[in-house]
Amino acid sequence: MEIINFADTPSLVSQYMSELRDVNIQHDMLRFRRNLERIGEIMAYEISKTIRYKTVSVTTPLAEAACQVIDEEVVLATIFRAGIPFHQGFLSYFDHAQNAFVSAYRKYREKENFDVFIEYIASPKLDGKTLVIADPMLATGSSMELSYRALLTKGEPAHIHVASVIASRKAIDYIKATFPAEKTTVWVGAIDEEINAHSYIVPGLGDAGDLAYGVKE
Amino acid sequence: MEIINFADTPSLVSQYMSELRDVNIQHDMLRFRRNLERIGEIMAYEISKTIRYKTVSVTTPLAEAACQVIDEEVVLATIFRAGIPFHQGFLSYFDHAQNAFVSAYRKYREKENFDVFIEYIASPKLDGKTLVIADPMLATGSSMELSYRALLTKGEPAHIHVASVIASRKAIDYIKATFPAEKTTVWVGAIDEEINAHSYIVPGLGDAGDLAYGVKE
Amino acid sequence: MEIINFADTPSLVSQYMSELRDVNIQHDMLRFRRNLERIGEIMAYEISKTIRYKTVSVTTPLAEAACQVIDEEVVLATIFRAGIPFHQGFLSYFDHAQNAFVSAYRKYREKENFDVFIEYIASPKLDGKTLVIADPMLATGSSMELSYRALLTKGEPAHIHVASVIASRKAIDYIKATFPAEKTTVWVGAIDEEINAHSYIVPGLGDAGDLAYGVKE
Amino acid sequence: MEIINFADTPSLVSQYMSELRDVNIQHDMLRFRRNLERIGEIMAYEISKTIRYKTVSVTTPLAEAACQVIDEEVVLATIFRAGIPFHQGFLSYFDHAQNAFVSAYRKYREKENFDVFIEYIASPKLDGKTLVIADPMLATGSSMELSYRALLTKGEPAHIHVASVIASRKAIDYIKATFPAEKTTVWVGAIDEEINAHSYIVPGLGDAGDLAYGVKE
Repeated sequence: MEIINFADTPSLVSQYMSELRDVNIQHDMLRFRRNLERIGEIMAYEISKTIRYKTVSVTTPLAEAACQVIDEEVVLATIFRAGIPFHQGFLSYFDHAQNAFVSAYRKYREKENFDVFIEYIASPKLDGKTLVIADPMLATGSSMELSYRALLTKGEPAHIHVASVIASRKAIDYIKATFPAEKTTVWVGAIDEEINAHSYIVPGLGDAGDLAYGVKE
Repeated sequence: MEIINFADTPSLVSQYMSELRDVNIQHDMLRFRRNLERIGEIMAYEISKTIRYKTVSVTTPLAEAACQVIDEEVVLATIFRAGIPFHQGFLSYFDHAQNAFVSAYRKYREKENFDVFIEYIASPKLDGKTLVIADPMLATGSSMELSYRALLTKGEPAHIHVASVIASRKAIDYIKATFPAEKTTVWVGAIDEEINAHSYIVPGLGDAGDLAYGVKE
Repeated sequence: MEIINFADTPSLVSQYMSELRDVNIQHDMLRFRRNLERIGEIMAYEISKTIRYKTVSVTTPLAEAACQVIDEEVVLATIFRAGIPFHQGFLSYFDHAQNAFVSAYRKYREKENFDVFIEYIASPKLDGKTLVIADPMLATGSSMELSYRALLTKGEPAHIHVASVIASRKAIDYIKATFPAEKTTVWVGAIDEEINAHSYIVPGLGDAGDLAYGVKE
Repeated sequence: MEIINFADTPSLVSQYMSELRDVNIQHDMLRFRRNLERIGEIMAYEISKTIRYKTVSVTTPLAEAACQVIDEEVVLATIFRAGIPFHQGFLSYFDHAQNAFVSAYRKYREKENFDVFIEYIASPKLDGKTLVIADPMLATGSSMELSYRALLTKGEPAHIHVASVIASRKAIDYIKATFPAEKTTVWVGAIDEEINAHSYIVPGLGDAGDLAYGVKE
C-alpha cells in the first residue's frame, strides 16, 4: 500500500494546513472551508496523475489536435458531514465524476470505546471503478473502514484512493491493516503522532465538522 | 404565509432555471450544480432583505463609518443529497452561518404511496434562530415537512424560510397546510402545475440529485 | 436618472460592505476580493430584473416548459485594475456576456488637480447593447466618465448601468451631470459624503486596488 | 533553463486542455474560463513545490504544531486581457500574493511582421521576489518578453516563472534565447509545433481572449 504524505514535499498544501490548524485563523469559516476545498482540489490533481488516459483527436478552430482524456470511471465518495467541503474540492476538479455519500457516527460506550454506525448511503455501482473516499480527519481510521465496507455493497472497485487532510499514525496503521494493499493508495496532508482519550488527533486542528459548519447540538 | 415566486419577476434566476430544465444543457454537471448554487446565492440575498440588522461603527483606513450588520442567528439547513449544491449557494453568501443537515428518503409502499424516513440529522440548537431549509425540488412537500419536524427536535426557530428551485402546486398547498403560517416564508424559483404517478414534478427537470451527482444504484 | 443605493435596504450587501471597510478585516485579501465579487454578483442580479426577457419552450426530461431567457445583449465593462474582482462578480452571473476592459489613470498636476488618461481599451461593438460599467470606487466620477467616453468610440449603447461599491456625493452629482439621464441607471453600495484632498472617499475603505492586489510601486 | 511540459505526464490538466481546444466545447465561456483558471491553480501548486518554506509553530485547539509556510515574496503578473482568467487561478491559490498587470499588443506592419507596444503597467517592486508571469498563449514569445522587460523597470526578481497553457515550439526557443537561463523556469500545458502566418498557434485553440471575453471590435 502506497502512502503519499504531502508534508514530505512542502507546497501550498503546507500553507493551507498551517491556516487550518491555527486557532487564530480557523475561526474564519469561509477560509477554513476554502482550505479544505483547495486541498481536495490538489489531491484530485495528484490522484489524476495515477489514472489511465486515452488519446482522442479533438478539432480546434484551426486543425486537429491529439489530446489525452481520462479513461477510467471515477467515483468521489465522502463521509457526512465534515467531508462535504473536502469532497467539494475533488468534485470541482473531477467535474464529470459520479459521487457517493455515506454517513457514519461514533457511538461512545464509555470514554475510550465507541462503535461506528452507518446511517445513510447513496452511491452508484462501483464495480471496476476508481473509488476516491475523502474524509478530512482520520483519527482511528474506523469511520473510513466502515464507510468502505458500506460502499462495497455497491460493487468491487478496481482501485481505492483514501484521501484525508490529517491522519494519526494509528489510523494509517489501521488503514494498512484493513484495506486491500494491492489496490489502495493513501493520500494525506500530514500524519500526526497522537490521538487523545476522546479520539481527537493531537496536535490536529480540532473538530473539522464544527469548524466548517458550526457546533452540533 | 408569504409565497415568493421568482418566476413573477424575470431575472437571472429565470435564465438559470431554463438551463437547469433543458435536457440539452443539464447533462453538463458543472453547469447544473453551478446553477443550483447561483439560485441558492440569490435566494440567500433576497432572504437577507427580510432579516434584522444593527448599526455598528467600523474603522476604515480614513475615518469611522456607520455600517449595518446582520443581527439574527441564521441556520442553513438542507436535505441530503440533492440539497448539497443548493445549500452551497446559501453558505457561499451567508458565510458566517451555522448549518444543519438532514437526510430523508421515500419508501414506496406502492406506485403512488410512500413514507418518508429520517436517517441522519446534524444541527445546532434552533431556539429563536432564523432557519432556512433548502431543498431544490418540492414534489409533494412531505420530505420538507418531515425534515422540518426532525429539526424541531433541536428547538423552536423564530422564523422559517422554505427555499426551493421548483415546487409543484400540490407541494405549495401542503407546505401551507403543515407549516406555521405566521412565521414561514416560502421562496421558489417556479411553481409547476403537475406531479406524475412517480411523484416527479412535470415539466420539472428530472431528478436533481442524479443530475448533480450521478445515478444512484 | 435613477440612482439605486443598496444602503437604503439592508441586506447581505451591507454585511459585505462592513467587512470591506473594516481595517481589521480588509487585510484578508481573499475575503476582500470575494466581497467585491459578491457585491458584483448581487448587482448583476438586481440589474437583471430591469432587462428584457423572451419566452422560449424548453424540453425537460418529462415535458415542455415555457422559460424566460435574457433578450438583450449585455456587455460587462470594467476599469483596470481595481475593477477586475468586481467585474469577476458580474461575469460570474452574466456568464454568457461579452466584456470590455478600459484602463485610465489620474495624472496629478498638483495636490488637488489631476487629469485622467485612457491607456487601454478592448471592447466589442456597443450599438444597441446594454452596457454595464463596473468600478468599485467613484471618488470624483471622472474616471467613470472618461471610460464611458472611450467606450462610446465602439458604438452607442441602448442603456448604461453605472455600478460601484462606494461613491462620493460629488461623484454621483458628476455622473448625473455627464451621463445621458434618460438611459443611465446608477447602482451603488453606499454614498459617502466626503472626498479628501487626495481624492479619496471618506470614510470609504482606502484604495480598493491596493487592497485587492497589493501596493503598486 | 528548465522547461516543464505538463503534457509529459497526463493529468487533469490534459482533460482541461482537451476541452479548451475543442470547438464543440470551448463556446461555453463559463467552462472555458474555468478551465484556464483550473490550469492556473494547478501550475501555482506545481510552482509552489519549487519555492522556499520556513517552519513556524502554530497553536491548534489542542497543542502546538510545527508547520511549513511560504518564505518567499511571490508576485503574480499577467498580460491583459487574455491573461485575466488564467491569473485568477494563480491568485485563487497564492491568495496572499502581490500582483502585477501589464498590457501589450501587436501592431502589424505587414502580414507577418509586427511590433509589440506596452500600454499599461501596475506592479509592486520586484527586487529579490519570485515573479510568475502568466499568459495563456505563447505564439512567438515576444509579448512575454516585452512584458518581462517592462516589469524589469520595477526591479530585478530573484526567479522568474513563465507560465502558459499552449506555447509554440518557436516561442519556447524565443524564451530560451531572451530570458536569463539560470533563474527562469517555463511551465507549459502543451507545446504545439506550428504557428501560422497570422501568428496563431496550430493546432492551438484559437484566440483565448475572444473565447474568454467575446470578440473585440
